[in-house]
Amino acid sequence: MTTVAVVYHSDSGTTKLMAEGVHEGVASVAGVKAQLYVIERSEIIEGHFQNEALLDSLDAADAIIFGCPTFMGDVSGPMKAFLDATLQRWYAHAWSGKLAAGFTISGTPSGDKLNSLQSLITCSMQLGMIWVGLDQNPVNREGRNRLGFYLGAGGQPVYGSDEPRLQDGDRETGVAHGARVAQIAKQLGSGA
Amino acid sequence: MTTVAVVYHSDSGTTKLMAEGVHEGVASVAGVKAQLYVIERSEIIEGHFQNEALLDSLDAADAIIFGCPTFMGDVSGPMKAFLDATLQRWYAHAWSGKLAAGFTISGTPSGDKLNSLQSLITCSMQLGMIWVGLDQNPVNREGRNRLGFYLGAGGQPVYGSDEPRLQDGDRETGVAHGARVAQIAKQLGSGA
Amino acid sequence: MTTVAVVYHSDSGTTKLMAEGVHEGVASVAGVKAQLYVIERSEIIEGHFQNEALLDSLDAADAIIFGCPTFMGDVSGPMKAFLDATLQRWYAHAWSGKLAAGFTISGTPSGDKLNSLQSLITCSMQLGMIWVGLDQNPVNREGRNRLGFYLGAGGQPVYGSDEPRLQDGDRETGVAHGARVAQIAKQLGSGA
Amino acid sequence: MTTVAVVYHSDSGTTKLMAEGVHEGVASVAGVKAQLYVIERSEIIEGHFQNEALLDSLDAADAIIFGCPTFMGDVSGPMKAFLDATLQRWYAHAWSGKLAAGFTISGTPSGDKLNSLQSLITCSMQLGMIWVGLDQNPVNREGRNRLGFYLGAGGQPVYGSDEPRLQDGDRETGVAHGARVAQIAKQLGSGA
Repeated sequence: MTTVAVVYHSDSGTTKLMAEGVHEGVASVAGVKAQLYVIERSEIIEGHFQNEALLDSLDAADAIIFGCPTFMGDVSGPMKAFLDATLQRWYAHAWSGKLAAGFTISGTPSGDKLNSLQSLITCSMQLGMIWVGLDQNPVNREGRNRLGFYLGAGGQPVYGSDEPRLQDGDRETGVAHGARVAQIAKQLGSGA
Repeated sequence: MTTVAVVYHSDSGTTKLMAEGVHEGVASVAGVKAQLYVIERSEIIEGHFQNEALLDSLDAADAIIFGCPTFMGDVSGPMKAFLDATLQRWYAHAWSGKLAAGFTISGTPSGDKLNSLQSLITCSMQLGMIWVGLDQNPVNREGRNRLGFYLGAGGQPVYGSDEPRLQDGDRETGVAHGARVAQIAKQLGSGA
Repeated sequence: MTTVAVVYHSDSGTTKLMAEGVHEGVASVAGVKAQLYVIERSEIIEGHFQNEALLDSLDAADAIIFGCPTFMGDVSGPMKAFLDATLQRWYAHAWSGKLAAGFTISGTPSGDKLNSLQSLITCSMQLGMIWVGLDQNPVNREGRNRLGFYLGAGGQPVYGSDEPRLQDGDRETGVAHGARVAQIAKQLGSGA
Repeated sequence: MTTVAVVYHSDSGTTKLMAEGVHEGVASVAGVKAQLYVIERSEIIEGHFQNEALLDSLDAADAIIFGCPTFMGDVSGPMKAFLDATLQRWYAHAWSGKLAAGFTISGTPSGDKLNSLQSLITCSMQLGMIWVGLDQNPVNREGRNRLGFYLGAGGQPVYGSDEPRLQDGDRETGVAHGARVAQIAKQLGSGA
């Protein structure tokens, strides 16, 4: 059975909402098992991500979708600590041939989210993974992919909300992204 | 006298509007001479930009602000042909120490404009130039820098307009960008 | 039958050598048809790439591998003109789901080749393609992937040579890259 | 008096060697005060960089040169935690108008170091800083800037060495880089 894992870091809770949307999209594809993993700040000891069990779980996935906020124009520090911890998989080519994809959140429409997606791609390519982008043309500048990202899914929080909220269309963008990755993972797996 | 040149390519006319805003911002700074140059498609012969006079004019500028649409996620083809033609300046270190800055337009809020700005920075760094960004925090997500760019100025056209129009705030973003580059060019020149 | 096309621009002839290596790698995979297309400067009229027949040929490919020199830190002007000309495929989602990959050549080990590969990825993602990287760990800093690229294949010319020559290992890097893309294209096609 | 700070993270000790070279270059410029600060893993608590005194020291600098290893294709996790901690300076525009520059080390010639430099630029631009690149044309592919970087200085370790060592030319690249940043900082300060 094809397995697609979503692994994310979220501080304020909006990336968590996006991750849940992506996970829902993955789960909507028949014959695909969806997994959701969270990177916790408490797992970072002296700058090292220390949850080896999470990395072991990902070893068994056919696709990994990485998500985090964009902080100061790049992936969040906790996500970077996690990515650093994939070094042993790099040595071993352990994730070679898996699919990779990404999503990120920041306060403004651009917010340099593209640089975060580029960093996620760069790490994925070092690991020998294959990158699946968003493939949603923003026809009407509303709804799905209203922000006009292509490397992955981008989102924005609603400010002044009492609880974490994504702007209209962003969760749907994530759902469609997860579904696309799952479908391609299934297709690639069937051909193996 | 400090001279700041704006050099741009525009097909539909919206990048031209942005360029005029940037130029206006440069001209608003006392003691700075503002210049506006356009890259024409007719100047590209077999993929080579052939207007040597334009390049010669830029040799005398203290700062050069590059502008173009983002096409398929990077600087427009005509801008790239122009950038290729700076090769002789690279050999000669002719533009070393000049300031550089950039702006770009595309149809969606992100629209991968950041990748175009990165390509403009990369070329500028090859030429030994010094990069000046936007420095406008998008406090209220409207008006100046409503899109949340930092490497340079980003804009979007208004669709369905009979004539080229920029979305509200984008021209003002360009004006402020031009003024900032001019002020820093003046400061750097005074210290030489 | 799975079809993989290599489309490249070359001025001095070294990118052509690399392209031939990549093409050889593609052709080495049983059941895969390899195609080689060249972007000519003469096909660029007023900055527009005008060879519609070449674009039509690519419509039928399962994977497209883009190659060009890195000029002033980004894809060469002729390659950019070609990429601009894929706009109709963007509107139509015509290349969605195809594989994409890339290679580039410049005079120094880094030479900002990574920025060219990022620009190729960005365009490919706008087109809805799926990106396949190099997946060659540079174990001994010689031979295959001696330069340490991951997003695609990088190469360098030999200077002072009477005819175009690539440095040792670079053509082999390209051959292995072509073979990998072909294998994944075949696998993805089998699962469709 | 013009003050230029070098702030770096180093695990194995080679980035430290590069940082010392950059610092030496800064100190070689008459009338410029050179400072050297280190980011320690022990200062990262739950993924947050906690050395507020270091950030306070940087507030007084005219230029900040950031250095770190490239891990998995981007700035090291500890450097990213540090960059995240500049958020309060972003809100306050506290570092606006300062110069910024960068250097990075990884095991292969390219090693995706360019992506790390892009991430450093992106953060610097969010902070309103002005980016100074390397400006060293790699004439003979040996010695200074033998690797062909432009956005900042790149280096590589010598493998199999008992103690940390940089490859020939890399420290000199760093020294020249530090000197250039110091000279431009002095010039900009004189013009203020």
